[in-house]
Amino acid sequence: MTDVWKRLRELGDRFTIAEITATRELFVPRALAPLAVGARVQRDLAYGPDPRQRLDVFVPAPAGNLPVVLFVHGGGFVGGDKGNEGDPFFNNVGAWAARSGFIGVTMTYRLAPVHAWPSGAQDVDLALGWLRAHVATYGGNPARIVVMGHSAGAAHVAGCLARHGCAPGSRSPAAAVILVSGIYELDLYPDGHDYRVYFGTDRRQDKERSTVAQLASLDIPSLFTISEFDPPAFHRNLAAVFPARVGQSGRCPEVLYQRGHNHVSVMMQLGSELDTAGNELAEFIRQLQ
Amino acid sequence: MTDVWKRLRELGDRFTIAEITATRELFVPRALAPLAVGARVQRDLAYGPDPRQRLDVFVPAPAGNLPVVLFVHGGGFVGGDKGNEGDPFFNNVGAWAARSGFIGVTMTYRLAPVHAWPSGAQDVDLALGWLRAHVATYGGNPARIVVMGHSAGAAHVAGCLARHGCAPGSRSPAAAVILVSGIYELDLYPDGHDYRVYFGTDRRQDKERSTVAQLASLDIPSLFTISEFDPPAFHRNLAAVFPARVGQSGRCPEVLYQRGHNHVSVMMQLGSELDTAGNELAEFIRQLQ
Repeated sequence: MTDVWKRLRELGDRFTIAEITATRELFVPRALAPLAVGARVQRDLAYGPDPRQRLDVFVPAPAGNLPVVLFVHGGGFVGGDKGNEGDPFFNNVGAWAARSGFIGVTMTYRLAPVHAWPSGAQDVDLALGWLRAHVATYGGNPARIVVMGHSAGAAHVAGCLARHGCAPGSRSPAAAVILVSGIYELDLYPDGHDYRVYFGTDRRQDKERSTVAQLASLDIPSLFTISEFDPPAFHRNLAAVFPARVGQSGRCPEVLYQRGHNHVSVMMQLGSELDTAGNELAEFIRQLQ
Repeated sequence: MTDVWKRLRELGDRFTIAEITATRELFVPRALAPLAVGARVQRDLAYGPDPRQRLDVFVPAPAGNLPVVLFVHGGGFVGGDKGNEGDPFFNNVGAWAARSGFIGVTMTYRLAPVHAWPSGAQDVDLALGWLRAHVATYGGNPARIVVMGHSAGAAHVAGCLARHGCAPGSRSPAAAVILVSGIYELDLYPDGHDYRVYFGTDRRQDKERSTVAQLASLDIPSLFTISEFDPPAFHRNLAAVFPARVGQSGRCPEVLYQRGHNHVSVMMQLGSELDTAGNELAEFIRQLQ
């Protein structure tokens, strides 16, 4: 265990392919599989017509009226996947959810450059709508859907919530949200990653396509996570949420800080024997009424 | 257990005497006592000539070269105490430290209005110096002293660290710091609490007597905690640290968010059966090399 933390520290916060690959090597042998927790998995259910509009549902037995966790993967707006049968990631997220007594759901979504802003946010919205209509048949409670996005996935989740707005009378499409190392302010996106392929190059649109203002007045329970070895841009994005949120609500956003983790290990660890986030995330979900 | 969280939610974030008293009633019956964990306590050791310059040392058996936690209580700069034998608070902090395998130390310090700025910071400094000289005889490692301040105590700890400065070559008087719901920016102090009796009424001095800038460039491990039902001013203080810290180091400060807790319950819970912070704080201390 100690060696994993030492290695993550050595890998640092650069978030390159080499770092991601090395991080995978640490976590693949430790990935929690759905079989290991006795979860039934329904794969590749269509929540829309596009081939990327698919989701997997992880069901603990016995299920009934359970909280639901919808996971939206990262991948820099141009890649990433929920994973297929036998893949370590992100079957681990579905398996963690099922082991925690929730219905786990992992989804894919349309990617840039073919599909630009706001396609990701629209797909999260579409998947949430699909779940509200169908998750009861899998044993889930449609009124207790928590949406959790990582990296670009967190940006899409934030985008989806922002599009619903926080005006009085607007209804959130989810009961709560978990945002893992996301981008919320386009001024603060990481150098060297071409997020413009999704958000567009016209900087006059940045404000409208950023979500900090909406996240500041979000009226559903929300949890932000940040990893010690997240690249600085992700730290800057979370830091931007703090004054906005406090100014709006008088309270800091709830934060789960992941000491020793990098941008990708934070999700790869979920459900493994060295998981430092899973219990906290499950507790956050369980306290929802 | 559930009733405690419900009651804390009802009490809200007002931080009045009534709220503090009601919170005490919840936690007194649950307070961890040194006897219960087999700790030896050396009481009222003088670290300076003033009657308030006293500290208690909580020693687990067997002790030797252990990490040391120095706790600095709150009390709005004019009150508060480490507690005496048989008191629930903050013997619970010393007992929690001893149970965790650390040398626990609780201290008192000189109070306003008799003693104004920077007396509190000076006393923390004095106590740290005393510990570096003496804690080895109690089984502690003088190179692994973690200083933890709560509320006004956190302001004093931050003040002590700021006075040492963060310039190259400056040496921190502690190995790490835990700041629990503190005041770091005098512009952001809570209304209705007369912190000016300590900091002085000349607002031109506020910048010099604030610690945000120094906390931003702090080069020892640091952990900030905030409670959901902290009054807004404490949330604003933590929010001010975020952009400063990210601007300086590229990383957010490490945060432990205490859902369901108020300004005083966060310390009263430590070591009790419903403690939601103790394991995280102990883990933070154990990872120090």
